[in-house]
Amino acid sequence: MWFMRQAGRSLPEYHRARGDTALLEAVARPDLVTELTLQPVRRYGVDAAVLFSDIVVPLAAIDFGVDIVAGTGPVIERPFAGRADLDRLRPPDAEELAHVSAAVRLLVAELDVPLIGFAGAPFTLASYAVEGGPSRHHSRTKAMMLGEPGLWLDLTERLADVAIASLRAQVAAGAGAVQLFDSWAGCLSPDHYRRFAAPASRRVLAAVAELGVPAIHFGVGAGELLEDMAVGADVVGIDWRVPLDAARSRLGPDVAVQGNLDPAACLAPWEKVAAEARSVLAANAGRPGHIFNLGHGVLPETDPAILQRLVDLVHRDGHAVEP
Amino acid sequence: MWFMRQAGRSLPEYHRARGDTALLEAVARPDLVTELTLQPVRRYGVDAAVLFSDIVVPLAAIDFGVDIVAGTGPVIERPFAGRADLDRLRPPDAEELAHVSAAVRLLVAELDVPLIGFAGAPFTLASYAVEGGPSRHHSRTKAMMLGEPGLWLDLTERLADVAIASLRAQVAAGAGAVQLFDSWAGCLSPDHYRRFAAPASRRVLAAVAELGVPAIHFGVGAGELLEDMAVGADVVGIDWRVPLDAARSRLGPDVAVQGNLDPAACLAPWEKVAAEARSVLAANAGRPGHIFNLGHGVLPETDPAILQRLVDLVHRDGHAVEP
Repeated sequence: MWFMRQAGRSLPEYHRARGDTALLEAVARPDLVTELTLQPVRRYGVDAAVLFSDIVVPLAAIDFGVDIVAGTGPVIERPFAGRADLDRLRPPDAEELAHVSAAVRLLVAELDVPLIGFAGAPFTLASYAVEGGPSRHHSRTKAMMLGEPGLWLDLTERLADVAIASLRAQVAAGAGAVQLFDSWAGCLSPDHYRRFAAPASRRVLAAVAELGVPAIHFGVGAGELLEDMAVGADVVGIDWRVPLDAARSRLGPDVAVQGNLDPAACLAPWEKVAAEARSVLAANAGRPGHIFNLGHGVLPETDPAILQRLVDLVHRDGHAVEP
Repeated sequence: MWFMRQAGRSLPEYHRARGDTALLEAVARPDLVTELTLQPVRRYGVDAAVLFSDIVVPLAAIDFGVDIVAGTGPVIERPFAGRADLDRLRPPDAEELAHVSAAVRLLVAELDVPLIGFAGAPFTLASYAVEGGPSRHHSRTKAMMLGEPGLWLDLTERLADVAIASLRAQVAAGAGAVQLFDSWAGCLSPDHYRRFAAPASRRVLAAVAELGVPAIHFGVGAGELLEDMAVGADVVGIDWRVPLDAARSRLGPDVAVQGNLDPAACLAPWEKVAAEARSVLAANAGRPGHIFNLGHGVLPETDPAILQRLVDLVHRDGHAVEP
């Protein structure tokens, strides 16, 4: 078990270590990334570390003009608007990813558990690039996707190259697994997902398979897309909207699942959190291939003491049943 | 066919008629509500009008302290925080809803097509009341729901009474159908929906059934909840995430469906919009009981000429196939 966003704003030691360092500045400092990544492993005894980073880091590395604004998220100075902008997108080279590789190497030397690296999936990165920031309706993205499908597919292929370069660097430096985050995929119909998002994501997953590490593929609100997202993935991350037994029956026995406690449930009193966590375990029914996690990232207002009890509960009760 | 938010910001005549009148002020003027509601019927020749209003109007009518802030949405001055706040919630009386009833009467006298009235479902109203406005994670709402289930159920029952009073007034004045909007239901797991949202919503739907008009039940991102939302409803509104054939097979032949073109698809060039609309019709495969609509509201930047062509296309090609 581990928690998406286990490192970060819910931990007092995170605020002490990061202070007012801007996020992209923090990510550029391997010593700080190492400390922030280790904090939740030390505190909770989770079974994996996840690199402290952001999905736009490789875009920042190639000077695409991205900033991360507190309270807003990634903001792109000059959004992707047409074919001329394709030239601004290329895979980052080893030097441009040196800070990432250095952090991963430091971490792997320190850790007794695997380090999970990650990248943003092409669709989600494309939405940030086109909208210029987080978007509620992804209107421009979808208008481009439908209206200029050739340009759109070129864009997602460039972003697949960006993701592949980033994941290769992380695995080469010692990451033992990767997660491909398609945070916004759930805004697509299955038909649009298959035509406009899946091709580039599958190329990323195939590149990960060649590296010999397992790939977790995760989207939010992506219940209708699970079968499509499973193609080429070892693990599918499930948000809390789909009960694990339903996810299992859609995906079959050959794919592992990750999830799926509602992060907001962790804000309730402990007995309620415990009941919710036991429901997740019961829905999985002891099937092997379950990584316990939340259905999305830890909310900043979460009490770390609750997450600690959750780790203890799952470590005590969350065993696979021998078939 | 009709469009959610067919009256509103996408129409130039809307901006001319409303000017800078605040939304709650506009809703209080039956003459203006009538004009804004009629505009899309005149322009497009859609098959139903939908009352120009907002789901928080009944809360404003009982002086719960709500404002609608442009660019933000409903904002609650003193959010619902505990048992003492239950006293602030009661069904609006006839006088408090007089402006709504007057607008409905004016409209019914003018219209050749049915008028659809609507209300916010208890869960969605509760989320606004507890969070104090629109919320991304519904954290406080869920913390209260899980942590204080007795208080939560009392809150949703009060809000069911509010919705019932509002819908009764609209139907008494001549509305021919109603839609219950559970905009935020899709943030709940099926288990939480059944325990914390469905009971109060079902009471609203039962009250509508007694009034003898059909009820449409709609949520966004609620693919996992469709079967539960169908209980007591005549029509289930489907967002674009669930293909209509999948929705049909989950719901069976006794429930009609409404939807489900992606509103963002309407921003593409016309040939692409037409192809998407034909896909929706093809997924329904001529089954009777399909109300063509978008999967969510019209986006403000939509070109009315596209919606006009869409109405014409569906009126030409969207016939039920005789079984």
